Amino acid sequence: MASKSFIEVQSESHFPLENLPYGVFKPEPDSEPRPGVAIGDYVLDLSAIASAGLFDGPILKNSDCFNQHNLNKFLGMGRPAWKEARATIQKLLSSSEPALRDNASLRQKSLLPMDKVQMLLPIAIGDYTDFFSSMHHAKNCGTIFRGTENPILPNWFHLPIAYHGRASSIVISGTDIVRPRGQGRPTGNAPPYFGPSLKLDFELEMAAVVGPGNELGKSINVNKAADHIFGLVLMNDWSARDIQAWEYVPLGPFLGKSFGTTISPWIVTLDALEPFVCDAPKQNPQPLPYLAEKISKNYDISLEIWIKPAGEEHSCVVTRSNFKHLYWTLTQQLAHHTINGCNLRPGDLLGTGTISGPDPESYGCLLELTWNGQKPLSLGGTTRTFLEDGDEVIFTGCCKGNGYNVGFGTCKGKILPSPQ
Amino acid sequence: MASKSFIEVQSESHFPLENLPYGVFKPEPDSEPRPGVAIGDYVLDLSAIASAGLFDGPILKNSDCFNQHNLNKFLGMGRPAWKEARATIQKLLSSSEPALRDNASLRQKSLLPMDKVQMLLPIAIGDYTDFFSSMHHAKNCGTIFRGTENPILPNWFHLPIAYHGRASSIVISGTDIVRPRGQGRPTGNAPPYFGPSLKLDFELEMAAVVGPGNELGKSINVNKAADHIFGLVLMNDWSARDIQAWEYVPLGPFLGKSFGTTISPWIVTLDALEPFVCDAPKQNPQPLPYLAEKISKNYDISLEIWIKPAGEEHSCVVTRSNFKHLYWTLTQQLAHHTINGCNLRPGDLLGTGTISGPDPESYGCLLELTWNGQKPLSLGGTTRTFLEDGDEVIFTGCCKGNGYNVGFGTCKGKILPSPQ
Ligand SMILES: [Ca+2]
Ligand SMILES: [Ca+2]
Ligand SMILES: [Mg+2]
Ligand SMILES: [Mg+2]
Ligand code: NI
Repeated sequence: MASKSFIEVQSESHFPLENLPYGVFKPEPDSEPRPGVAIGDYVLDLSAIASAGLFDGPILKNSDCFNQHNLNKFLGMGRPAWKEARATIQKLLSSSEPALRDNASLRQKSLLPMDKVQMLLPIAIGDYTDFFSSMHHAKNCGTIFRGTENPILPNWFHLPIAYHGRASSIVISGTDIVRPRGQGRPTGNAPPYFGPSLKLDFELEMAAVVGPGNELGKSINVNKAADHIFGLVLMNDWSARDIQAWEYVPLGPFLGKSFGTTISPWIVTLDALEPFVCDAPKQNPQPLPYLAEKISKNYDISLEIWIKPAGEEHSCVVTRSNFKHLYWTLTQQLAHHTINGCNLRPGDLLGTGTISGPDPESYGCLLELTWNGQKPLSLGGTTRTFLEDGDEVIFTGCCKGNGYNVGFGTCKGKILPSPQ
Repeated sequence: MASKSFIEVQSESHFPLENLPYGVFKPEPDSEPRPGVAIGDYVLDLSAIASAGLFDGPILKNSDCFNQHNLNKFLGMGRPAWKEARATIQKLLSSSEPALRDNASLRQKSLLPMDKVQMLLPIAIGDYTDFFSSMHHAKNCGTIFRGTENPILPNWFHLPIAYHGRASSIVISGTDIVRPRGQGRPTGNAPPYFGPSLKLDFELEMAAVVGPGNELGKSINVNKAADHIFGLVLMNDWSARDIQAWEYVPLGPFLGKSFGTTISPWIVTLDALEPFVCDAPKQNPQPLPYLAEKISKNYDISLEIWIKPAGEEHSCVVTRSNFKHLYWTLTQQLAHHTINGCNLRPGDLLGTGTISGPDPESYGCLLELTWNGQKPLSLGGTTRTFLEDGDEVIFTGCCKGNGYNVGFGTCKGKILPSPQ
């Protein structure tokens, strides 16, 4: 895109005119939540733009989708509405367009410094599903828990494994996470351990935000699945490995996961990510026909994990990974999710699973990075096996374009001690 | 209760003045959903009673909780509001009280024949959790899948095992269920089976409806947990055993469950169930302190499963079980769910898991009744291993009082064939 914005955007910013990610914010603590788009260091208030009559395309002209507390209504309207909104906003913010540029009162009302607003969960999440789509993560976990012989279970290569997660405890970046209490595996004949988790971990993930859903009993074709995905967020699926290890047979993770899941405030659209499409890994064995897509897309999104230990001034990078390492694509995940007739709804969240790459520097959780606590990780002057109280974990994600970024900002959270 | 209603209630009715279960209904196809209470063969429209100013107690007098599309607001108000509503409605419907009895126009407006209204999901379900609390069910499943040695895994006796279920596909009794398609375990070196599930099953469950919830990061004490439970419904956790068996390691059931879950329309309150309290089974080993409750309550609720095969005129009873067979109590389930700080919200649903009793006649699913298809079940003139297209499955639940019932009505659904 040749066009520039009349808003100054630093070259390292995650939010140039090429990005335009969607979020929900409050300008003041007691104002109503409303949708916005990030541009440089500003948030554009879409409710103000809509009230000013500047969404003048055929689909959005008479819609109240930006006078809502969340993005769900807009998500349900589908790709034609998303395309129209993107074109309108790109035009409005471009340096050549006077409508907003030369209207001082509307600029004042609609463009707010990002560091002055409060970001909120952008969507009402009806259901949250977490997949397990990185082969490297599956292999490392399998090796740690079951040994080096056949670390990946046979079903993994035939279907994108997933479980239902807890929607109520999904929180916005910046929310503190209370260390969960729970049971751990007993040693010998003693009763199980009970107390604060001793193996608190993060999981580097991204999550797809569902647009239009499907009716119960009908499936979504894998080649049409992209039209049901609005965009992506960063996600930290906080995990208590000791609780998880004791509870998870035979019905899967429960309290080891449900104490908190953090997402980034900005949803980067698939339209903004399109320049960063890359090939997905070759799949062997061939997936069944309902998962065999004509074009298999991944995205080249650099991901980093930083940890800032309590009392330290600086954070240390501990992982550099990339979304492109995922084996199962977003569209395969979505098609699989609905093949049994399960209905998706606008705003549903589909986590990718931990995004680990092939190298130890690219592992997406402490379980892998410290090999279940056996190899402490050095963090500046200190070390970690699992998270300690006061640790802050920060994820970032960014696509590097030619002279610009399409980024996700950060997804962060700090650990508070368990209640007494 | 000595009091009788001015509405005639048959002695075998599930809905006498002692019950007063809550639901949500539409009087006409295009009218607004509203809360109601069942009395005999009638539904009392609570929005009409509220509009007439007859909720005159201190908590409900100025509340709009019955002018809502679901019961969530009322649920969030907690036991004092529930007690006040119950006392007001029992008085209004009693034969000695003239306010409604002698007001022909209000009776006309507010008392509707149950067979003329459309029942809807009574709650907006934010999250649905399914437990695994029957020892008999755990033992039978373990024996079928892993053999007779240690059929119950060691964690089962220390905590109420559960998984997160899918909220979007919970439907009201009477909704048809489309047979799911999906993958089944491959034989030899062939690719996995793909097609309509060949092992479609039901699971006889009940589910607790959550009232006031808790803040993220705070737990609910097991001895106070009952104040967070409004009441119970019947629930059919439809299950595709072949899909489940192939997908469930290591993250638990997913598409084998998420194609549909049916609940009964009437929520029977814990207050109405109080006369049917019975002791819970003795637990050995002793549960950890956070699960050790001062009073451990079960409920004596007779449960039946009936199947009506396609084209048959009559249904056959296949199971007689009872809620009292559950090992883990509702309050233990709820306390466990929040011990890690997970937040519950009004309207959340906590399924008990399949309620199997000790005898083969009391098993709660076909997996157990037919021992994974090995022993066909005879149904009048025909037999079943798993469900066939056109089969209708009907659950009933009832507490037998002295000359009256406190019942749940029915929870039913019919199987439609898979899409092509
Ligand atoms: Ca995860
Ligand atoms: Ca179940
Ligand atoms: Mg989580
Ligand atoms: Mg189900
Ligand atoms: Ni309405």
